[in-house]
Amino acid sequence: MGSAHIAVIHGPNLNMLGKREIGIYGGKTLDQINEEIRLEARVHDVDVDFFQSNVEGFIVDYIHGCAGRIQGIVINAGAYTHYSIALRDAIAAVRIPTIEVHISNIYKREPFRHVSFIAPVCKGQICGFGSYSYILGVRALLDVLAEEWLA
Amino acid sequence: MGSAHIAVIHGPNLNMLGKREIGIYGGKTLDQINEEIRLEARVHDVDVDFFQSNVEGFIVDYIHGCAGRIQGIVINAGAYTHYSIALRDAIAAVRIPTIEVHISNIYKREPFRHVSFIAPVCKGQICGFGSYSYILGVRALLDVLAEEWLA
Amino acid sequence: MGSAHIAVIHGPNLNMLGKREIGIYGGKTLDQINEEIRLEARVHDVDVDFFQSNVEGFIVDYIHGCAGRIQGIVINAGAYTHYSIALRDAIAAVRIPTIEVHISNIYKREPFRHVSFIAPVCKGQICGFGSYSYILGVRALLDVLAEEWLA
Amino acid sequence: MGSAHIAVIHGPNLNMLGKREIGIYGGKTLDQINEEIRLEARVHDVDVDFFQSNVEGFIVDYIHGCAGRIQGIVINAGAYTHYSIALRDAIAAVRIPTIEVHISNIYKREPFRHVSFIAPVCKGQICGFGSYSYILGVRALLDVLAEEWLA
Amino acid sequence: MGSAHIAVIHGPNLNMLGKREIGIYGGKTLDQINEEIRLEARVHDVDVDFFQSNVEGFIVDYIHGCAGRIQGIVINAGAYTHYSIALRDAIAAVRIPTIEVHISNIYKREPFRHVSFIAPVCKGQICGFGSYSYILGVRALLDVLAEEWLA
Amino acid sequence: MGSAHIAVIHGPNLNMLGKREIGIYGGKTLDQINEEIRLEARVHDVDVDFFQSNVEGFIVDYIHGCAGRIQGIVINAGAYTHYSIALRDAIAAVRIPTIEVHISNIYKREPFRHVSFIAPVCKGQICGFGSYSYILGVRALLDVLAEEWLA
Amino acid sequence: MGSAHIAVIHGPNLNMLGKREIGIYGGKTLDQINEEIRLEARVHDVDVDFFQSNVEGFIVDYIHGCAGRIQGIVINAGAYTHYSIALRDAIAAVRIPTIEVHISNIYKREPFRHVSFIAPVCKGQICGFGSYSYILGVRALLDVLAEEWLA
Amino acid sequence: MGSAHIAVIHGPNLNMLGKREIGIYGGKTLDQINEEIRLEARVHDVDVDFFQSNVEGFIVDYIHGCAGRIQGIVINAGAYTHYSIALRDAIAAVRIPTIEVHISNIYKREPFRHVSFIAPVCKGQICGFGSYSYILGVRALLDVLAEEWLA
Amino acid sequence: MGSAHIAVIHGPNLNMLGKREIGIYGGKTLDQINEEIRLEARVHDVDVDFFQSNVEGFIVDYIHGCAGRIQGIVINAGAYTHYSIALRDAIAAVRIPTIEVHISNIYKREPFRHVSFIAPVCKGQICGFGSYSYILGVRALLDVLAEEWLA
Amino acid sequence: MGSAHIAVIHGPNLNMLGKREIGIYGGKTLDQINEEIRLEARVHDVDVDFFQSNVEGFIVDYIHGCAGRIQGIVINAGAYTHYSIALRDAIAAVRIPTIEVHISNIYKREPFRHVSFIAPVCKGQICGFGSYSYILGVRALLDVLAEEWLA
Amino acid sequence: MGSAHIAVIHGPNLNMLGKREIGIYGGKTLDQINEEIRLEARVHDVDVDFFQSNVEGFIVDYIHGCAGRIQGIVINAGAYTHYSIALRDAIAAVRIPTIEVHISNIYKREPFRHVSFIAPVCKGQICGFGSYSYILGVRALLDVLAEEWLA
Amino acid sequence: MGSAHIAVIHGPNLNMLGKREIGIYGGKTLDQINEEIRLEARVHDVDVDFFQSNVEGFIVDYIHGCAGRIQGIVINAGAYTHYSIALRDAIAAVRIPTIEVHISNIYKREPFRHVSFIAPVCKGQICGFGSYSYILGVRALLDVLAEEWLA
Repeated sequence: MGSAHIAVIHGPNLNMLGKREIGIYGGKTLDQINEEIRLEARVHDVDVDFFQSNVEGFIVDYIHGCAGRIQGIVINAGAYTHYSIALRDAIAAVRIPTIEVHISNIYKREPFRHVSFIAPVCKGQICGFGSYSYILGVRALLDVLAEEWLA
Repeated sequence: MGSAHIAVIHGPNLNMLGKREIGIYGGKTLDQINEEIRLEARVHDVDVDFFQSNVEGFIVDYIHGCAGRIQGIVINAGAYTHYSIALRDAIAAVRIPTIEVHISNIYKREPFRHVSFIAPVCKGQICGFGSYSYILGVRALLDVLAEEWLA
Repeated sequence: MGSAHIAVIHGPNLNMLGKREIGIYGGKTLDQINEEIRLEARVHDVDVDFFQSNVEGFIVDYIHGCAGRIQGIVINAGAYTHYSIALRDAIAAVRIPTIEVHISNIYKREPFRHVSFIAPVCKGQICGFGSYSYILGVRALLDVLAEEWLA
Repeated sequence: MGSAHIAVIHGPNLNMLGKREIGIYGGKTLDQINEEIRLEARVHDVDVDFFQSNVEGFIVDYIHGCAGRIQGIVINAGAYTHYSIALRDAIAAVRIPTIEVHISNIYKREPFRHVSFIAPVCKGQICGFGSYSYILGVRALLDVLAEEWLA
Repeated sequence: MGSAHIAVIHGPNLNMLGKREIGIYGGKTLDQINEEIRLEARVHDVDVDFFQSNVEGFIVDYIHGCAGRIQGIVINAGAYTHYSIALRDAIAAVRIPTIEVHISNIYKREPFRHVSFIAPVCKGQICGFGSYSYILGVRALLDVLAEEWLA
Repeated sequence: MGSAHIAVIHGPNLNMLGKREIGIYGGKTLDQINEEIRLEARVHDVDVDFFQSNVEGFIVDYIHGCAGRIQGIVINAGAYTHYSIALRDAIAAVRIPTIEVHISNIYKREPFRHVSFIAPVCKGQICGFGSYSYILGVRALLDVLAEEWLA
Repeated sequence: MGSAHIAVIHGPNLNMLGKREIGIYGGKTLDQINEEIRLEARVHDVDVDFFQSNVEGFIVDYIHGCAGRIQGIVINAGAYTHYSIALRDAIAAVRIPTIEVHISNIYKREPFRHVSFIAPVCKGQICGFGSYSYILGVRALLDVLAEEWLA
Repeated sequence: MGSAHIAVIHGPNLNMLGKREIGIYGGKTLDQINEEIRLEARVHDVDVDFFQSNVEGFIVDYIHGCAGRIQGIVINAGAYTHYSIALRDAIAAVRIPTIEVHISNIYKREPFRHVSFIAPVCKGQICGFGSYSYILGVRALLDVLAEEWLA
Repeated sequence: MGSAHIAVIHGPNLNMLGKREIGIYGGKTLDQINEEIRLEARVHDVDVDFFQSNVEGFIVDYIHGCAGRIQGIVINAGAYTHYSIALRDAIAAVRIPTIEVHISNIYKREPFRHVSFIAPVCKGQICGFGSYSYILGVRALLDVLAEEWLA
Repeated sequence: MGSAHIAVIHGPNLNMLGKREIGIYGGKTLDQINEEIRLEARVHDVDVDFFQSNVEGFIVDYIHGCAGRIQGIVINAGAYTHYSIALRDAIAAVRIPTIEVHISNIYKREPFRHVSFIAPVCKGQICGFGSYSYILGVRALLDVLAEEWLA
Repeated sequence: MGSAHIAVIHGPNLNMLGKREIGIYGGKTLDQINEEIRLEARVHDVDVDFFQSNVEGFIVDYIHGCAGRIQGIVINAGAYTHYSIALRDAIAAVRIPTIEVHISNIYKREPFRHVSFIAPVCKGQICGFGSYSYILGVRALLDVLAEEWLA
Repeated sequence: MGSAHIAVIHGPNLNMLGKREIGIYGGKTLDQINEEIRLEARVHDVDVDFFQSNVEGFIVDYIHGCAGRIQGIVINAGAYTHYSIALRDAIAAVRIPTIEVHISNIYKREPFRHVSFIAPVCKGQICGFGSYSYILGVRALLDVLAEEWLA
């Protein structure tokens, strides 16, 4: 599986990680988290691209750009999780296996965060484990890809 | 009506037409659809501008830019149809006659696609006829404009 | 496509067109609208039958009678649009391609008019263009029939 | 006001009055109620037509037929009160002053009887007084007509 | 029925009648309306007491005071109609036949005015006929009382 | 129980049985089903009348006509099941024991088919067994009648 | 069909039949009902097992145990009907044709009894006929099995 | 308080102020309003930055950029007020005291404008006073800052 | 504007200010707040009356008494904000420009405090700034009055 | 605990106890109930004040007056239980331990009586035991006070 | 009343009392609470049985077993309060007077704990007084039993 | 971390894994999945206990039994996820770190499966990865435990 190439996408406000509400999101910066992900990817001999944007449409653009180049996506769509139908359609359009992750346990928070518009077009969801949600997301993705290759 | 100038606006993910979910959206690319529209416009001796963006705010910008330059708009707002109040306000602000179109029959799909935030500020809605929805949209727009000129 | 035979169905209160609420529905009578439709049909070398009734069940009867005789239907179900499951079932039963049209933009009116029980069993919906909604409906229907014949 | 001509319309199942659920609707037959109404009308020197049907569309037909011939309507739409948008549209279309009456107090009954689709297009509503609701309805109608003639 | 004694109760803001929103409530003052009611009562040889208060609890007090002294009530509870459970309980407690009246057609107004908390404990409801709603209310009440005496 | 006389009522679109959506409703025509019911009735020495109409009001008329002549009803109200309060009132009015049947399992279909307005005025409900639902309905009806005769 | 083996499952509180609320559930004990069912089964040359439990999970256990041994199930899930997703999943898991029955007409009772979580995974539903609902359930089941064997 | 530095943020479509729907939003342009705000700020010896964008994500970017540089924010989020969870999260993230303002009284408009997703993370809300809402917003902000400095 | 005369109305429980829940409402007493308002009014050469009551109907009485005597109202209706239709009707009746204020940010509190029945009949709303909300309310009111005098 | 001083508050319509709906509220008058409470209080060597009013605001006034004088409150808020946010705020403001009682079991009655706005600010709730609910309420209150004194 | 025999039933998780969430449920163990209840019962010369189970169906079994042996029940159904229709049916079936108690004030907690499925079949409800809720429950039960014996 | 001892709990119907709906849940049996988990645990030098039950109350019992013996729980509560408040309370009571897992992506299934009553009391949720969800759950749990030991 050495040639796999995956993308990790961070949605709005995640560039503020480690700089804001540490009680909810933990004290690591996005760069530190990306570094952790990169290490995990290296263990599995996988290339990983990173993308962060606060602009819904730019995330849509980026997902489109993954088509034909990226085998799988791990996405923390942040606030857009809860209302971006555009993001949902983008994931459905490119048909790349996608894993939804969240740093916090969204089911312990405000009711409007209990709904995910992208969940039905993702393979699965992982939330509540801090930055480790990403690591689990990468592993889940690789497992999904492995199963697809076997099938 | 030879001097009329209209705009056709395509919302998020429509740049992927013909490349994605062909069962829902058909096999034509956006360029092919635009070409069909251009031909239809030419028949009516009308100029037509095209715009596509995945960024909600850029579509708002574009609509603002139509003021004083464009006589009518045909818009397929894609996913933004269902939640973009900003788009609704933009259409209401410029007061240019606008026709809402959809490629698929949105009433056959998920419940959240049955609501259009822009419908109440548009002249009318056409959905379900594939790329031909655009052609009908152009004709409906020209009919609306003709009636306004007569009034 | 010269041998095509289509039906145009008008639901309750549409016999009052041109005689009532002109601000909402325009000043043309049903006869005038039917004449416009007939002209459009003639252009496309298509036969067209007309039917109007205020009785839900008679419209159901009429739709049943179309089976095996009519290739496509354009229907403005009027008030029945919003609650007649019987009409919905009739359209689904005969499996004749059907186009839903409305004179007014139903999405600018009372909330109970925003729901169409027949939309999910029709090919598509056109609303808000006055009597021209019917003309667009006929064209949409012919396009649908042409695609079916090609397929 | 001797030349006034009014119509009293009875909706579905009201032909069964006096023959059914007497605990809810009282023991008078529809003929007896109509006779009471006729007497009341005669006192005011008013002509009155009666109509009863169990068919929603026939009531719509009848209301259309009142246009240009009838100055006011008293209607007990029975069950259709609660879901017939077609009836509502018919009343709105003919623009004849209309009074909504009910024999029983609909607000003491099942929740689905608490909603009236015709109330917003009627002058007013009277319910709960048995057959006397009709008599009050006739008087209310004459008062409305007198005010219009004065205005 | 010469010895009957009835009460007419006016709820909050009705003391402003004729001085406020004339488009909705008409131009008569409360005194003028009371005078009309008195005349109607005199025709039927009935005594009538009047009461108006803007204080929910004082209306409750007054209704309690009617027990054993008043045979029937006509009440326009104004805004309290839509939320005063205390008023509802007061009417239910004294078990005096009560008629609910409204000057305007509450079903043409804001949705929160479509609900009446007192309707289920009243004999019936009359609304939409301006000050004439009270006159009809008095007549309905006398009919109810006559039926009770006959029973 | 030889002198019993029952009615079987088929609502809208059921005249299309065997000619439409066979996957949902099975391949038997209404005549074939009626023949099966007749055979079942004969076994029990019971007379059976059949009625089908697409017109809500005609079904109401028919139910009224059953009063004094028919001892029990088996009804498949089709689409009217889900919104016809008029039908509900008709069944309640004649007070003839009535069994509600459906060919398909309505709880496996669209949510709006999960509600029956007539269920609360029927003895019981049978659904999901194809044309055999009618046979079971007849037997249930005879059991109900037998119990009433015993009581 | 002599070798068929079916199971009849009674949910919570049904062991109290004949000992409790006789007005709602009738005066027969569960043993008497089981005896009636046994007789009916014998007529059709079918073996029948009976099971009653007040414990949701034990009913789930029992249904699992039917796999490979039982050809069809008649179940009155009692109160669990309205909230036991576990029961629903058990029925779906074993894929044994299942008929849902109820002694009372659940649509005449509290709103929370109008919802059945198991209906969508059962063949059909029979309710309102007292203990005879079970007999009809057995016959419906045998009809379903016969059709499957024919298919 | 001379060294305070605040930001005024205008959301989507506010660049059209004075050019569109003057009946709702008044006739002043955004430049004129900004000039008024600047004058007010100068009175209080406060520096003020202005930002307007139609792109949700750019407003998020801008708010992030305020961190460590700006002491307080006055924001009219326009349409994004009603659905942008991303904006809410941005305000919560930077923890800069923020005042929500609106030109029109949003509670007199469509129901979807009655909900503010940012209100719970702002200090307070001011709406309905035209461009003067901004002036009041600046004063409210300075009062909030003064209290914080005192605390 | 020296001759302007305004009223400041405090609703239920506001007499307890400074004596209760200081964390929510701050430590100032109502007298201290009124003194602050008086000072602000004096700066603008405006007379100000104060009124506080816990009785809904007395506040209605007071508002009626303002008619013809008071040019503008600042009201903190306290708990009545969220359910008093009587108060709403009183404000609408007297047609005096009215500003709604709240000490706390009601959108950070329980959901039932997010709804204001008086907002749609007030000019605008100010909430969340402690006692300073009143000062801003007075200024907003004077701005509204000045604009009306200019118009 | 001899020096404790408590208050018992009766809300609207409770002055009618023993004179009205005895089936729901029992046959004791308010004086008799108060006498029972006084006896119970005497057993515990506690002083007790009584208050009844039909005016929401007077109950609020009374609760304010309890501050600093009364150690605990037993309240039957009657109809105000279900909508008086003013009462809720009053109880929260004075911070006196308060017990909510009801004579009838409010959960057996209309749905709007299932909600209590004061329950979340009271120590606990007792309902359904007739006048004995008050006695239990006094005991519960004394237990709460004893625990507070111990703490 | 010396021969009375009552049962106290504890639902799921109550075996953990005193060992878990002491802030919500207090520090006493179930054994200690049972001992307190036993003492209270002894004062009234009443026998008391105790039962605790985490299994819904076992509680149903136990309630069935009370029939004919137990005169009254005090039940804290714990979490099953909020969804167990089976428990509700069991209480209704045995017709033994039952008192519902809760240790915490359920109306201060999550919304799903505000609904009790058993309240409508119990005599009354007591909540919020810690273990003392049980003592009050026993007394309320004895009062109910005494009244029944008197009746 | 060699001495850690964790529990893996499987809810209702999971004993049927590999034997039922393989399209949704995959083809592995519960034993095979447990074996996979055991291997994963061994890698981390962790002891693991397994428990499966179809009885809600037995799972509650088991969770209670974990207290003081087990350091962490991985639970797939199956159908009970969506309605078992008893399970939620059990997890909250023992305060053992708990990870919620699901084999299928519950957000792609029926709406009633989108709600988890246990999510708010768990550390996090993992769903959609087949049996690999358990493996990820174990790793997430160990990460949570490691962080707690570090803290």
